[in-house]
Amino acid sequence: MPSTSLFSTEKIVEAHERIKPFIHRTPVLSSTAINAIAGCQLLFKCENFQKIGAFKMRGATNAVLQLTEAQKKNGVVTHSSGNHAQALAKAAQSAGIKAYIVMPETAPKVKVAAVKLYGGQVTFCKPTLQARETTAQKIIDEKGATFIHPYDNAEVILGQSSSAKELFEDYPDIDVFVCPVGGGGLLSGSILARDYFSPNTIIFAAEPEGANDAYQSFQAKKLIPQTNPNTIADGLLTSLGELNFPIILNGVKNVLTCYDTEIVAAMRLIWERMKIIIEPSCAVPLAVILKNKELFANKKVGLILTGGNVDLEKLPF
Amino acid sequence: MPSTSLFSTEKIVEAHERIKPFIHRTPVLSSTAINAIAGCQLLFKCENFQKIGAFKMRGATNAVLQLTEAQKKNGVVTHSSGNHAQALAKAAQSAGIKAYIVMPETAPKVKVAAVKLYGGQVTFCKPTLQARETTAQKIIDEKGATFIHPYDNAEVILGQSSSAKELFEDYPDIDVFVCPVGGGGLLSGSILARDYFSPNTIIFAAEPEGANDAYQSFQAKKLIPQTNPNTIADGLLTSLGELNFPIILNGVKNVLTCYDTEIVAAMRLIWERMKIIIEPSCAVPLAVILKNKELFANKKVGLILTGGNVDLEKLPF
Repeated sequence: MPSTSLFSTEKIVEAHERIKPFIHRTPVLSSTAINAIAGCQLLFKCENFQKIGAFKMRGATNAVLQLTEAQKKNGVVTHSSGNHAQALAKAAQSAGIKAYIVMPETAPKVKVAAVKLYGGQVTFCKPTLQARETTAQKIIDEKGATFIHPYDNAEVILGQSSSAKELFEDYPDIDVFVCPVGGGGLLSGSILARDYFSPNTIIFAAEPEGANDAYQSFQAKKLIPQTNPNTIADGLLTSLGELNFPIILNGVKNVLTCYDTEIVAAMRLIWERMKIIIEPSCAVPLAVILKNKELFANKKVGLILTGGNVDLEKLPF
Repeated sequence: MPSTSLFSTEKIVEAHERIKPFIHRTPVLSSTAINAIAGCQLLFKCENFQKIGAFKMRGATNAVLQLTEAQKKNGVVTHSSGNHAQALAKAAQSAGIKAYIVMPETAPKVKVAAVKLYGGQVTFCKPTLQARETTAQKIIDEKGATFIHPYDNAEVILGQSSSAKELFEDYPDIDVFVCPVGGGGLLSGSILARDYFSPNTIIFAAEPEGANDAYQSFQAKKLIPQTNPNTIADGLLTSLGELNFPIILNGVKNVLTCYDTEIVAAMRLIWERMKIIIEPSCAVPLAVILKNKELFANKKVGLILTGGNVDLEKLPF
């Protein structure tokens, strides 16, 4: 169990109930063909079918709904490579408040367009963490907006926990759960859901070799920031959060990594066999499963397909 | 009601029951965003999630299961631009019989690979109807195999009727049904399902301008063969079948056509908004709906997404 009092069974349940009117309970799909290739039973929780096309809708919605009336008046601000940006813009729009979104100028076009569609006010910056943070700080200072971090935020983590919670409710006997890790919002939320609702499930984190700060941090047992990430998995470029890391360190069995070629092969397998659209970041769990089949042999394995917002003009096939 | 005694309520029900163990009952999806764009309530019957990735599994399975024991010994043969080929190969494999598949040398790689995966014996030919037919005839003469036509076959039509039947069972109050038309197998089957199970539903056929033989035949009230088709909708290139045409002539309200640019735009809308993979041929119904919004305003509209077998290296985006 995590030691911090920020989290509890009650808080997880309350967050899920709070956001339910604003999210889809996403379906769980499976593929006989991919099971045969992997040698285990795979249960894909389809957050690519979530509102805004990604699980980030859950955390952003919970964070916005927990704002005070005074905070709501000045709106919210964040920096995000994409899905959290859309999620916060839509959650803010639903709540009738302003959303200021700082996006790297390299963000996929489809994600920028979606943020604007949801009424978000976009400010572009250089694609570095420092540029994102200083640009966001300027908006906080000028507008008095509340900063909603994409993952290093307790209310966001509580919101993200609802996806794994739903999966554990639908399938109470999952042996292993595999979760991609970027900043660690979904992973730390999923660990909380496991701790309280499916304690016998083992969790592995899945990470691209080209952004393996979680792997390094897990091995060193201290937070090592990500520098110069280089991977196709554009949702997993950031460093682990301060709030997320201790939960992850105590909660996962291991961090498994894979190369971009393996990510693209797993992505293609899901596209061709399941006929659903997923982002490269989503394919990382399947890639590490196919790379480490012995860890999963004949097990019931849950994994979250985190999002489906790809730029169709820049596919890796 | 169609005049031919080849079809009846009982035969449709029996065909559906016969194939049920071998097919998926496919889900019906909807999209708030696309409904808003179209100005009506769209119900997408997802045959892209069907076994082999297309509705053709239904008709091929019914045809194979209706063979005599004597016929089964010599196997089956067909010519197909793709999905019927995969379907017949897989249906034959399940029944433990041989499948000889004549494919145009221009068929998508992913479809050829799938036919071989299901144990089909592929013979390539020039991409003309004449070349297909003479090559298939040669195999009939040499092997004694039974020819299973992709659409001009009563058992195939009965099998295809099960998709619309399922949709009408799930949604008994569909105002309008829009169906793509190539050879007319799915369309004639859907008309039979409508006649017997949802008689108040109006049916429109949807066809690419570049292969508009159904439009021309419907206007002339006589079967006009397709010559030199030119469209991205590679599942809709063939001429209407002899058995299919009278059912279609009596059963549809009209044949609506659209251009390839409109097909690609509709396809992209489904990919981006619904996060599911569909073939260009599938997008023709949505394309004609978006082109003729006044016909569908505020109606409950059913449409079949016929398949998801696209060559990911040759996307039109």
